[in-house]
Amino acid sequence: MSTAEETTGGEVEPWDEVTPDAARRLLVAAVEAFAERGYHATTTRDIAGRAGMSPAALYIHYKTKEELLHRISRIGHEKAVAILRTAARGEGSATERLADAVSSFVRWHAGRRTTARVVQYELDALGPEARSEIVALRRQCDAEVRGIIEDGVRAGEFDVSDVKGTTLAVLSLCIDVARWFNVNGPRTPDEVGALYADLVLRMVGAG
Amino acid sequence: MSTAEETTGGEVEPWDEVTPDAARRLLVAAVEAFAERGYHATTTRDIAGRAGMSPAALYIHYKTKEELLHRISRIGHEKAVAILRTAARGEGSATERLADAVSSFVRWHAGRRTTARVVQYELDALGPEARSEIVALRRQCDAEVRGIIEDGVRAGEFDVSDVKGTTLAVLSLCIDVARWFNVNGPRTPDEVGALYADLVLRMVGAG
Repeated sequence: MSTAEETTGGEVEPWDEVTPDAARRLLVAAVEAFAERGYHATTTRDIAGRAGMSPAALYIHYKTKEELLHRISRIGHEKAVAILRTAARGEGSATERLADAVSSFVRWHAGRRTTARVVQYELDALGPEARSEIVALRRQCDAEVRGIIEDGVRAGEFDVSDVKGTTLAVLSLCIDVARWFNVNGPRTPDEVGALYADLVLRMVGAG
Repeated sequence: MSTAEETTGGEVEPWDEVTPDAARRLLVAAVEAFAERGYHATTTRDIAGRAGMSPAALYIHYKTKEELLHRISRIGHEKAVAILRTAARGEGSATERLADAVSSFVRWHAGRRTTARVVQYELDALGPEARSEIVALRRQCDAEVRGIIEDGVRAGEFDVSDVKGTTLAVLSLCIDVARWFNVNGPRTPDEVGALYADLVLRMVGAG
């Protein structure tokens, strides 16, 4: 287990792979600054200052502000794909795998909501190349959930007439947790995950 | 019918109530600027320029940038309350009223997604007084949907163990349409509204 594991939601920080330490600190500072003020209102000087570094030190690791957003977005989306893939390729029935996908995806969006908001709301700020890379990762997220729903329909576990639309709605419901989730609110990430797994199983007509 | 009615979603522009014309033009310009660059990266000079006016002319109508955001947020939330209240107080069964609430709320978020994004994502930029006014309107939205679900449970139409959590999920699902909806995508606002009404009726265990 990582020492960066959070108390809320029990999720591991997604930045462990970023080295050296200065590059990771800058990434964390950029997430906070983008979340607070928005991408366009944040300067590389702001980000360096938050990380306790000089603008010159930032440029050793990231050539532009967009490179920081791109890196954050790629790591965030790769983590999302990994969570959904692990659930989709598990051993249980489609019902069990869909419940697992939804509860773990919800826990991630509740526990890492600051990162998730930046990743979701600042997509338009990416250049065309970075954007198409991220869009490909988003299609993989979609494909993992759609795969479970198709399995469930084939196995007679689910009753779904619009598989694509239902997949979209399931992902959307989980992603929006990042917008409204409040650590001081009455529900833990685990509780929201359990509730949402139940609601999604109803959406697909399970059991 | 208003001449400002949109082709996508058939929703009426929510700014008709804003007079005089210059004040309305400034509000529309502010929505566009906030959506494109974020609240903090937008200046009142940017907004005046987009509306083809001088900064001095802007100050006749709005004393601060926050006043513009507050006005946009209040009108957007009042419209949301009105949509949900109309559906909640309709004549049909709880099943019919919930389907109506969801489909009309989805159509609004798809058709007015630029406004909806500003209203939803820039809440933190409001001062404490404006914020508590908006929070009160959000509670009214919640109460309207919760009221329909409670009616449905009482009438034996719905089977819901967590009414508060299910209400939150229903609203969240509809609101997130503003994030992902694409006018060039394969679905019209009406089609998304119909799909989502069906999914929500499943969530509450209707029929």
